[in-house]
Amino acid sequence: MQPTWKEIEQYAKEWVIEAGESIKEALEGSFQIKTKSNPDDLVTDVDKSTEAFLYNRITSTFPDHRFLGEEGVSEGIEDLEGIVWIVDPIDGTMNFVHQKQNFAISIGIYENGVGKVGIVYDVMKGELFHANDEEGLFVNEKKVTKQTERPLHEAILGVNSNWLLEDRAYQPELVQLAQKCRGTRSYGSAALEMAYVAVDRMDAYISFNLSPWDYAGGAVLLEQAGCKATRFTNEDLSFLEKGTVIAAKKQLHEIVVQQLQEGSQ
Amino acid sequence: MQPTWKEIEQYAKEWVIEAGESIKEALEGSFQIKTKSNPDDLVTDVDKSTEAFLYNRITSTFPDHRFLGEEGVSEGIEDLEGIVWIVDPIDGTMNFVHQKQNFAISIGIYENGVGKVGIVYDVMKGELFHANDEEGLFVNEKKVTKQTERPLHEAILGVNSNWLLEDRAYQPELVQLAQKCRGTRSYGSAALEMAYVAVDRMDAYISFNLSPWDYAGGAVLLEQAGCKATRFTNEDLSFLEKGTVIAAKKQLHEIVVQQLQEGSQ
Repeated sequence: MQPTWKEIEQYAKEWVIEAGESIKEALEGSFQIKTKSNPDDLVTDVDKSTEAFLYNRITSTFPDHRFLGEEGVSEGIEDLEGIVWIVDPIDGTMNFVHQKQNFAISIGIYENGVGKVGIVYDVMKGELFHANDEEGLFVNEKKVTKQTERPLHEAILGVNSNWLLEDRAYQPELVQLAQKCRGTRSYGSAALEMAYVAVDRMDAYISFNLSPWDYAGGAVLLEQAGCKATRFTNEDLSFLEKGTVIAAKKQLHEIVVQQLQEGSQ
Repeated sequence: MQPTWKEIEQYAKEWVIEAGESIKEALEGSFQIKTKSNPDDLVTDVDKSTEAFLYNRITSTFPDHRFLGEEGVSEGIEDLEGIVWIVDPIDGTMNFVHQKQNFAISIGIYENGVGKVGIVYDVMKGELFHANDEEGLFVNEKKVTKQTERPLHEAILGVNSNWLLEDRAYQPELVQLAQKCRGTRSYGSAALEMAYVAVDRMDAYISFNLSPWDYAGGAVLLEQAGCKATRFTNEDLSFLEKGTVIAAKKQLHEIVVQQLQEGSQ
């Protein structure tokens, strides 16, 4: 008998909470830190062991489900056929290493490319954001219904300073947006920042370069909140390739995309 | 009989927690929002009622203590003689209004200009940072002892994007610092960000323009953590006038001040 989506989501929630307990234990002791693509791109053995834990749970319980994770405990995938779990074991590894908080486990479960379940778990705060396409969005099991659209000049934008300082495409337009909005924030975890937009703590989140596991969970939360997440070009996010991300309340999303596109012409 | 500093601190902690409960109640209902110096400089009736509550408690319990608060429920002061409570009832009002979290009550108690007690209370997270010059620094009553010095290229800097984008003195130097460090964060509350440096969640916090109530509590936390907080020029902070603030671990503070000064010559 095929499991229902309700059952799949229940397993996913239990596993992230179980994984979170192991992460907390690891933080009490010591862990190894390495760098990946550059000296500031950190990874720890806790990232890897958390991904392995989730991979083992998922594939032993659902042998026909497929897996895409940041740390590569399984081979990459080339299409989104069937049911695919897209997992970031620790989103915000720099926060994990430096702050021992403000990081999240992120899971998006997709069926033939369609977002069915999204989970973003702020481990140290104990705050679980989850959404599914039947019941909507929840924070710690409390349904989220209210979204407030604000004009750009009253909006809070999530954007990292470093993006604003680099000479690259869209940078001048992004600087203008940051200057026109009410305020900017930067928390150092894309998954959490997308969740914050979904639950109305920020109005938009913008990043130049994210990987599918960074936004697969958040994208489901946002969709269920009535928000929109796309590339800067307004194209759909790809869950197989990295790229730009603008996640925002629907009306603000339109305004931001328009300003990014107009400026870049 | 004069109260001991231990007793004064105990009152201060109880009052901020009591004030926090009222703020939480206010957040369940509705509150009025107004603007001050500009459309993004927000104030609510909760800021005002919280300051009034603290002012009344302080002056009725300690009639010879003086009071300096953001919302002006008492007259300003022109010197720091005797015992002065410097109070921000809600530091991070934009977060209060938009996020209903990530704001703090901040209190610094000074005797003849010397920091005796500092309190920063993250109301919604229930996280109380406090320090006094006899016992040091605590988070939720747990003593904080560990501080890690990191070189600039491994440091996390708290800095708001908007400062980096404005054409003003020190801006080019600050941009360089942001580019050289490992990462930047922005939380939207100076009091919390100074507390985060004190407890080693960030390595430095930099702001172009803060008022005494924004940093009076944080400055005591930082001093008790062995960190340093000064103007960009390395001059002592004034608790009567606004200005620039650089709060950092001691060695990093020296490096940052040097880079700000060298660049500006």
